[in-house]
Amino acid sequence: MANKLVYWFREGGEEMRHLLGGKGAGLAEMTRIGLPVPPGFTITTEACKIYYASGQKLPDSLKEEIASHMRELEKEMGKTFGGERNPLLVSVRSGAPVSMPGMMDTILNLGLNDQSVIGLYEATGDRRFAFDCYRRFIQMFGNVVLEIPLSEFENAFAALKSKEGVTEDQNVSAEGLESLTREYKQIIVEKTGIKFPQDPYEQLFMSIAAVFRSWNNERAIIYRKVNKIPDDLGTAVNVQAMVFGNMGDDCATGVMFTRDPATGENCLYGEYLVNAQGEDVVAGIRTPKPISQIDDDLPGMYEQLKRVAQILEDHYKDMQDIEFTIERNKLYILQTRTGKRTAQASLEIARSMVNEGKISKEEAILRVKPEEVARLLHRGIDPNIQVEVLARGLPASPGAATGKVIFNTRVAESLGEKGEKIILVRPETTPEDMPGIVHAQGILTSRGGMTCHAAIVARGMGKAAVVGCEALKIDLEENRAFIGDLVLYEGDIISIDGGTGAVYVGEVPLVEPEMGETFKEILIWADEMRKLGVEANADTPEDAMRAREFGAEGIGLCRTEHMFMGHDRLPVVQKMILADTEEDRRRALDALLPMQENDFYAILKAMRGFPVTIRLLDPPLHEFLPNVEDLVRSLAEMKAKGGPASEIASTEEMLRKVRSHQEMNPMLGMRGCRVGIVYPEIYEMQVRAIYQATARLIKEGIDDVKPEVMIPLVGEARELEVLREMVEQVAEDVKKEQGVEFEVVVGTMIEIPRAALTADEVAEFAQFFSFGTNDLTQTTFGFSRDDAEAKFLHKYLADKILPENPFAVLDRKGVGYLVKTGVELGRERRPDLEIGVCGEHGGEPSSIEFFHMVGLDYVSCSPYRVPVARLAAAHAAIRNGN
Amino acid sequence: MANKLVYWFREGGEEMRHLLGGKGAGLAEMTRIGLPVPPGFTITTEACKIYYASGQKLPDSLKEEIASHMRELEKEMGKTFGGERNPLLVSVRSGAPVSMPGMMDTILNLGLNDQSVIGLYEATGDRRFAFDCYRRFIQMFGNVVLEIPLSEFENAFAALKSKEGVTEDQNVSAEGLESLTREYKQIIVEKTGIKFPQDPYEQLFMSIAAVFRSWNNERAIIYRKVNKIPDDLGTAVNVQAMVFGNMGDDCATGVMFTRDPATGENCLYGEYLVNAQGEDVVAGIRTPKPISQIDDDLPGMYEQLKRVAQILEDHYKDMQDIEFTIERNKLYILQTRTGKRTAQASLEIARSMVNEGKISKEEAILRVKPEEVARLLHRGIDPNIQVEVLARGLPASPGAATGKVIFNTRVAESLGEKGEKIILVRPETTPEDMPGIVHAQGILTSRGGMTCHAAIVARGMGKAAVVGCEALKIDLEENRAFIGDLVLYEGDIISIDGGTGAVYVGEVPLVEPEMGETFKEILIWADEMRKLGVEANADTPEDAMRAREFGAEGIGLCRTEHMFMGHDRLPVVQKMILADTEEDRRRALDALLPMQENDFYAILKAMRGFPVTIRLLDPPLHEFLPNVEDLVRSLAEMKAKGGPASEIASTEEMLRKVRSHQEMNPMLGMRGCRVGIVYPEIYEMQVRAIYQATARLIKEGIDDVKPEVMIPLVGEARELEVLREMVEQVAEDVKKEQGVEFEVVVGTMIEIPRAALTADEVAEFAQFFSFGTNDLTQTTFGFSRDDAEAKFLHKYLADKILPENPFAVLDRKGVGYLVKTGVELGRERRPDLEIGVCGEHGGEPSSIEFFHMVGLDYVSCSPYRVPVARLAAAHAAIRNGN
Repeated sequence: MANKLVYWFREGGEEMRHLLGGKGAGLAEMTRIGLPVPPGFTITTEACKIYYASGQKLPDSLKEEIASHMRELEKEMGKTFGGERNPLLVSVRSGAPVSMPGMMDTILNLGLNDQSVIGLYEATGDRRFAFDCYRRFIQMFGNVVLEIPLSEFENAFAALKSKEGVTEDQNVSAEGLESLTREYKQIIVEKTGIKFPQDPYEQLFMSIAAVFRSWNNERAIIYRKVNKIPDDLGTAVNVQAMVFGNMGDDCATGVMFTRDPATGENCLYGEYLVNAQGEDVVAGIRTPKPISQIDDDLPGMYEQLKRVAQILEDHYKDMQDIEFTIERNKLYILQTRTGKRTAQASLEIARSMVNEGKISKEEAILRVKPEEVARLLHRGIDPNIQVEVLARGLPASPGAATGKVIFNTRVAESLGEKGEKIILVRPETTPEDMPGIVHAQGILTSRGGMTCHAAIVARGMGKAAVVGCEALKIDLEENRAFIGDLVLYEGDIISIDGGTGAVYVGEVPLVEPEMGETFKEILIWADEMRKLGVEANADTPEDAMRAREFGAEGIGLCRTEHMFMGHDRLPVVQKMILADTEEDRRRALDALLPMQENDFYAILKAMRGFPVTIRLLDPPLHEFLPNVEDLVRSLAEMKAKGGPASEIASTEEMLRKVRSHQEMNPMLGMRGCRVGIVYPEIYEMQVRAIYQATARLIKEGIDDVKPEVMIPLVGEARELEVLREMVEQVAEDVKKEQGVEFEVVVGTMIEIPRAALTADEVAEFAQFFSFGTNDLTQTTFGFSRDDAEAKFLHKYLADKILPENPFAVLDRKGVGYLVKTGVELGRERRPDLEIGVCGEHGGEPSSIEFFHMVGLDYVSCSPYRVPVARLAAAHAAIRNGN
Repeated sequence: MANKLVYWFREGGEEMRHLLGGKGAGLAEMTRIGLPVPPGFTITTEACKIYYASGQKLPDSLKEEIASHMRELEKEMGKTFGGERNPLLVSVRSGAPVSMPGMMDTILNLGLNDQSVIGLYEATGDRRFAFDCYRRFIQMFGNVVLEIPLSEFENAFAALKSKEGVTEDQNVSAEGLESLTREYKQIIVEKTGIKFPQDPYEQLFMSIAAVFRSWNNERAIIYRKVNKIPDDLGTAVNVQAMVFGNMGDDCATGVMFTRDPATGENCLYGEYLVNAQGEDVVAGIRTPKPISQIDDDLPGMYEQLKRVAQILEDHYKDMQDIEFTIERNKLYILQTRTGKRTAQASLEIARSMVNEGKISKEEAILRVKPEEVARLLHRGIDPNIQVEVLARGLPASPGAATGKVIFNTRVAESLGEKGEKIILVRPETTPEDMPGIVHAQGILTSRGGMTCHAAIVARGMGKAAVVGCEALKIDLEENRAFIGDLVLYEGDIISIDGGTGAVYVGEVPLVEPEMGETFKEILIWADEMRKLGVEANADTPEDAMRAREFGAEGIGLCRTEHMFMGHDRLPVVQKMILADTEEDRRRALDALLPMQENDFYAILKAMRGFPVTIRLLDPPLHEFLPNVEDLVRSLAEMKAKGGPASEIASTEEMLRKVRSHQEMNPMLGMRGCRVGIVYPEIYEMQVRAIYQATARLIKEGIDDVKPEVMIPLVGEARELEVLREMVEQVAEDVKKEQGVEFEVVVGTMIEIPRAALTADEVAEFAQFFSFGTNDLTQTTFGFSRDDAEAKFLHKYLADKILPENPFAVLDRKGVGYLVKTGVELGRERRPDLEIGVCGEHGGEPSSIEFFHMVGLDYVSCSPYRVPVARLAAAHAAIRNGN
């Protein structure tokens, strides 16, 4: 005898997924643990292979095996397949070993024919329902099995509605539906030359064959290709008795959660409707009642449901979302799945399940999704209030904010200093907008992607930002903006939600975030499990303090360029850049030195006990200079209007100088350590400021400060060698001048492919590496972060040319290869090399997992991502071991 | 007994270089083959090590070994060391196993003291000469051995000249020099407390110790570090009898070449001076006579010299440059080295030495330097004419040109079309300047480096270009330029030499290039040896024809963007880019299609029989659009002057559109295949044009055309997959429409690090790879080619942070790693993958060697570099085998 090709649900279980498919295995599992699942059986994936091997035919032996199961099912249900009285109806559904949602076919109500439809009518007392079921079945069968276009049936239905003078499906009469079933059968004859089969077995075998065929329909093939699912798995077919919750007042249907999905409280939560079908609960035509009242309608049912809930939760060890139907006082479970929940509930459930001894701490940690809890750390629009969304952009930095529309950075700065609440609205932001951003509650831009300047800065500061809001047309000259017909003037109040990308007119009520005790406890568990250290990117003492509160174990990236942007400093910085001689430049730098020293003093003090990795100046110098276009414009105006010659001359001179700093591709130009090599005096000033601040703190008795100097944009070991010597020299000088001792630690960013590929040589001069994966992604892909998203990346993502935005989720294949190579080569030369990452990816869970896998020591991310990173690092450790 | 530490020249040879050092081994080699080398001996590198091991002392045994050699040398020379009559003088020179020019010390005329100086006077009859020698020796000894600053001696000499009222050294009297020797000895006593040693052995041992010490002077240590020479090699010391060519009319000195270094003719070539020293020949105070006349002064000497020349050339198997001195009718050979020669001579000598059976063809090929022969392929300034150089820039593209200064591309184009000779003078060039460049004889820019746009385009076209000429200040508004005080107006005549970077006022006589028979023959030998194919980068039928003439075996890169720049096309291209709808865009593309078809028709026809690799549109679209600054300026002017509202509105509209195409970093932005994916209709038009041209040629009976479609800037295999499908679809359509068959070949550039790192996946869809090493260098280093050279690369090269400009010479460590990885992964997936390179490096010898080593199939370079590449590829094959 051939192998067994058909299994009762009661014969299978989760472990037979390969043979029974996902759905079949799930139904089997529920059956096995004694839950009331409508009975049925699964035809295996093996049968599917045999079907194809037999030239797309069901062998007679298989047909006989199925028929014998049907006969047993009739007995079990006390119904007759295709019978005139109390007919047995079944559903026929595909179910592959790997979930392929919507890719293959399903047929419901199979077993209806001209006789059994009467039986159904009699059983339910609802003629309209019976013929509607029949009509739907013929249509489904005609379309799925006989491949007749749906439009053929829909046209006939439309004609019927027009004849009856109704527009909604549910208003068509029972008689009309009955006549429609005749028309449908006629369509089948006309289109295929065969009659709609009245024999339920013929219906069944044709349907099973159709499901097997659907394994190789075009969309399934493409889906498998895209998702890299083997083509030879085959699909199983599930044949299950249909049950109805709408056969009378002793019937019902409902949905329940084993715990409260909003709060996580351990109590049965759900809704039901008496005498209704599943879709009625969803459709919202009738208002469902809370599950706690079900005994009023169906006495004793609450206890049954509670027991089922308990069994399923205990079995799956997670909160379950359960669909049930009660047919004539008998409870059937149709489906169970892990229940969706709020972030808060997620934490609550994880903690209490550990306390109840149901799951281990590791399992609890894995249950909490890092991206979910991220939402807990920002203010949001009050979810209980309905407000109209004016426009949508990209949700660039979570949190919500309300304030006055301000288009100009200087105005934002001066109003902000007075305590006004402001939303800075710009086409896009640049480092020049920093003072405005600092003083704004939120940022809204019309251009840019998830990783544009505004987005990165806002995320770093935990400020709300919506970017790339294309509906917003900004007219900077007139200080106004348009969204459709609406005009926004300076000072108008708007609100934005950076978690959803929504923009609202006026003030919208906000809810404050909390980091509750549960969250804190879960994070402490996570800390016990993770191998990766978690540090923060922070440029100010305030950010540093916040990072400490969130559990950061140091500053992995302290940028210094923002310190150059304050309105008291920018003029000095510009003087420094535009100096004609080294002497003039040094004079300007001398003026900056005490300011920088104070910057470092404050941040080192705030982070005492922890390392503070200070990156020397990184962006192109011209970012600090006036805009060329602005200069060109005012020059042209002055000339056209005959302005004063001296003013024209000085503007021309400024233009000439600014132009000499202009670059075609600033991202690949004069920045990072290149600035430090061409103008060593700039880096010397910064290093001196760092060590003078250190010396001052030590003299004040604070001797546990740990500054580390990080050189950006190294691509060749010699660059680092030269600059390292400089740092050591300046440190020696300061030690001598101040008469104190401190440790000198020098490392580098690895953010240029060549640095990763020559990391062994670079490690010769570096005590630590910090992967700058933002820039590394730019150069590895040849994508400009500022341009890519708006110009082509959206299209790449829509067309699935790339699976993810590589600026958000680390590209393991390309960028990851370089990270791995950099780690291996670096440690080869210097086994104790400390290696971290400080790009945006340092706060993104999938990337964090990769960093764990390649053996990094720590990740560094914006303060608000620190809890997320702690959790994600624990996930990585649990999933991948050490 | 200890090892032998001192070797007579006659005891050594080339194979003892490690022990005797380079100089010692060379003198030994000449001595061994019987040439009259002034006798002497070498103190080994072993002795140097012993010196250091003995606490920087010469052991007595070593001193004795040296002294015994000196005594034998006295006998051999018939002179007395430190003697009053006919004194033996020696030179003491360092000589390490690896050449370290100028790093260590030399002492001449050793053996002079208060007695022997009289002997020298008597022997030469020249008292001034004798005391000048003595003065120099004391000074050299004082400085090198006793470490007294040179300035001490120079001040004394200056005082003497002032006292005698002369300004030139040679006008100082013999008496003055004699008194100066006394002063010098006094200086030594004052500065060191010891007397200048009169004992010649003391002089000798102190000098030898000083040479050993100089192995560890600071500059030598740094030199070894930079050049990676081991510190423990040590230096040898050569002690050699001095001979004088200025002891009377039976003395002479001279230089000879074994063949004519200008033409390569096989005849003795050189000059001599009777009664003179070596430096007199060089100084040019007396005019030397041709060597052919030497018998007039020294009968029989020509035959002797000829024999020596023959011996040396036969021995070293190359043309030699020989220094000789005749002391009292006796010929001494002081040095021989491989003679420098012109490119033409280099070819001539190589060929004739093969024909004479002296060297193999392989050796001949290796003798011809690729960079040398490159110069043969371009016109140059007539070397026989002296003209003043006005300014210098970078020698960006060899060749010389004369023409009218024109600052504006359109003016250049219209004058050029009338046949005027033009030098296009711009701050820098962009693709918009193409029409002007096409019509210019040469290009001069004030900005940019060796690989700026102007440089690359000019090299591609074989046009002269000088770039980055910083002395040139261009005032585009007034159509003039300044070089110092000189003003150049439009229409002024200038000349430039792109081989030297020189700029001249007015017309300068030029010489035409030739590719003589010898050159052609050598290249045919090279073709037999090389493994790499050599193709050309060419965009026009003219370039293609030239490439064929130079031996190109195909077009490895046919750029299509230049085809979009013609003044009849640019407006259509702009319309296409700025179209608001796909329909409008398609309309503009329809207009471009026949033009592109004609482009491809012509170039495919010109290259029939050879593959033509056509790269689809690559640069950012905004390069074809008007300049934003220009628009801003005219808009501001119009507004300030109250211009017509409609004109203002249309300019504003244009500005808005152009701005929407602006990018922060165009090199990393919307270009290459990204354009093809976002606007597929553009690539479709180009592919259609290619295959319609192919079909047309086939129908005309020309069926050996081989178009290959190359997709630029791929970073992810899916990009290529999608575009490949498009190409195949269009090809199918054309085949059907035209009723012809042709082969479809699709490949890609590998110019993004990620493409190299995922080359296995990319190879799935590529029939060929072509490494775009220009872009790959940009992204691997994070260097913008347009910005790097002017902003920081010059400093990097000056400070030796990078050994070479990576845009000129392939960086093997970083970029090379990616090339190697790309080749390996690509061939792993597709063993028959055709792999080439089409960046600038494809024509650069060191890079070509690397491409040979990693197993590329071909290189592609500008037509004028094709002969260079053929030669360099042969070099690579000979040096590295297969």
